[in-house]
Amino acid sequence: MKKVAVLGSGYMGSAVTFPLSERNYEVNLWGTWLDDEIIDTCRQGKPHPRLGKRLPKSIRLHDSEHLSQAVSGAEVVFMAVTSEGFVPVFKRFLESDFKKECTVVALTKGFIEEEGEIRRVSDRAERMLSEFAGKDSAVSWVSAGGPVKAVELAYGIPTVTIYGGKEQVAKQSTDMIRTDIYRAFPCNDVIGVELSSAIKNVYSIALGICDGMFKHRKVNVRHDNYKAFLFASAVDEMAKIVTTAGGKKRTVFGQPGVGDLYVTQASGRNGRLGELIGEGRKPKDAFELMKKNDQFAEGYGTLRYTKRFIEQQSDLELKSLPLLETLYRIVHHEEAVGGEMERFIEKYRCVFNEQ
Amino acid sequence: MKKVAVLGSGYMGSAVTFPLSERNYEVNLWGTWLDDEIIDTCRQGKPHPRLGKRLPKSIRLHDSEHLSQAVSGAEVVFMAVTSEGFVPVFKRFLESDFKKECTVVALTKGFIEEEGEIRRVSDRAERMLSEFAGKDSAVSWVSAGGPVKAVELAYGIPTVTIYGGKEQVAKQSTDMIRTDIYRAFPCNDVIGVELSSAIKNVYSIALGICDGMFKHRKVNVRHDNYKAFLFASAVDEMAKIVTTAGGKKRTVFGQPGVGDLYVTQASGRNGRLGELIGEGRKPKDAFELMKKNDQFAEGYGTLRYTKRFIEQQSDLELKSLPLLETLYRIVHHEEAVGGEMERFIEKYRCVFNEQ
Repeated sequence: MKKVAVLGSGYMGSAVTFPLSERNYEVNLWGTWLDDEIIDTCRQGKPHPRLGKRLPKSIRLHDSEHLSQAVSGAEVVFMAVTSEGFVPVFKRFLESDFKKECTVVALTKGFIEEEGEIRRVSDRAERMLSEFAGKDSAVSWVSAGGPVKAVELAYGIPTVTIYGGKEQVAKQSTDMIRTDIYRAFPCNDVIGVELSSAIKNVYSIALGICDGMFKHRKVNVRHDNYKAFLFASAVDEMAKIVTTAGGKKRTVFGQPGVGDLYVTQASGRNGRLGELIGEGRKPKDAFELMKKNDQFAEGYGTLRYTKRFIEQQSDLELKSLPLLETLYRIVHHEEAVGGEMERFIEKYRCVFNEQ
Repeated sequence: MKKVAVLGSGYMGSAVTFPLSERNYEVNLWGTWLDDEIIDTCRQGKPHPRLGKRLPKSIRLHDSEHLSQAVSGAEVVFMAVTSEGFVPVFKRFLESDFKKECTVVALTKGFIEEEGEIRRVSDRAERMLSEFAGKDSAVSWVSAGGPVKAVELAYGIPTVTIYGGKEQVAKQSTDMIRTDIYRAFPCNDVIGVELSSAIKNVYSIALGICDGMFKHRKVNVRHDNYKAFLFASAVDEMAKIVTTAGGKKRTVFGQPGVGDLYVTQASGRNGRLGELIGEGRKPKDAFELMKKNDQFAEGYGTLRYTKRFIEQQSDLELKSLPLLETLYRIVHHEEAVGGEMERFIEKYRCVFNEQ
């Protein structure tokens, strides 16, 4: 029986145990030091506190003290912690007695800061691998993307995901993981998958802001014209960012970009954050309020990192990304929503005319 | 005072009179022989029966008998009839005393059959122009696309639209029409704009089917993972169709494709038709039922035409468009939804692997 480890027992880590157990692997779910309560609850046979559903019975649960037991001998290791938690957890993993030829599947989305530089997760991981595991590291890497809301996956909604990695690795890992519900497809564009996954959280805030702006309008008319305009603008800007950073347009226009942006804006924490901002709340207050209620909107911090990531690219300017610039001014400069959204259309026109 | 004519007083034709009157043009709205009741109602100062809102007071209303009065001297003529009505109305227009150097802005979306061939609207119009107006015709053509729901436009929701045409014409017409609410941008890809506008109605049925399939599920969980997968697949297939037919990828990935698909699936008749089918109704019955209630789902017929249009392209096969093929089997062969959607994922995998 093949052994699989999942590091991080939040939404996504726990959700992925459903397809994994369906494939009859020995599934080891490890909770970080922030997850001890979750692991405890699940051990008592109660529903997972976030997913609201019992995990499959066969899952082996490990609390934060026992990472080594969880990963020892595992052929596939899912990294399912937040981007904030990635470095400390991956470090612990690399210091443990892990199987040297394992494949790491990264479910972590976002950027990581390292000595003032903003890096993609796989970029950071590669540096850590050469530091800890040495140049002869045999660890393979896959970054997962695509439209996957964890709760839906746990409840059996058919889900497509794209695993980006070197051709052979991506193919092997998707073949190993795929079920009728969790349909994993391979792709060789790690950069595109990773960046799309991270940045879609940012643009989902914009779509939420749009909802918030029109929420208290007296006339009972939808505002999909405006939202659709923002949606398509977001896709366009995501394509610019991804291609400048070495990823492929195709990835943005496929499941990892368009698909993931669609699912994220349809429901979820980043859209909710945007909605609160669009209604007139101070962005920081809205973010903190949500956080207090266990609703961590990852796009808030990713927006800051995305801006810095863009500033690192020599051939990309923030002003060629008018929606991102607008978002940044609203969220981190606390500029008034209405005025900024008005100015956005003018900025859009300038960029449009230059193309 | 510049004179503008709008032919067709349904949703879109009537909605566009709002920005036009804001620009202080003399706006002439002409109703077809199917629209006499609408024109009558508006003449009595009552709200437009479809939009549920009074048209601007300055609009001049013309019933079906008086097309010539509406178009005579008009510098811009909006064609706002359905694709079924396009040929007879455009013929009447060409036989009238219209201004020879006018610009026609086509709001009509769909395909037109001519002697067994399926044609784009502008393609058909060009043939009619050379037949009726002669080779020295000075009529300019623009096709409108992008995320524009008529009701929202009429109620002042900020709306972006793309006018596809020859560079100078597209620029001039957008400059002439643009307001703070109706933000028209030029683009030189007529084919891409036209095809995206037509085909998004077809794919919106697929997204509606997805809603219908999960509507009566017992567990209270959304199905956005699945819907997002279909959304991104639709965009991908639209890009294939458009580029094969000579349009640009960029158009599909922008407002006319992604944007318009987004707004259309968010609410509207084609999604509703799909929902009924997804719930288990016979497609033909669902279509007829809606039609009886004045809810004409244009995608139903456009699906048939899209299939034939594809069969006309020598370098495109239906089997490389698995979602469209699946839709066709469900809607026009009346195959069971569940089984076809299951097979779709397999077909998707085959196409994915070939790429």
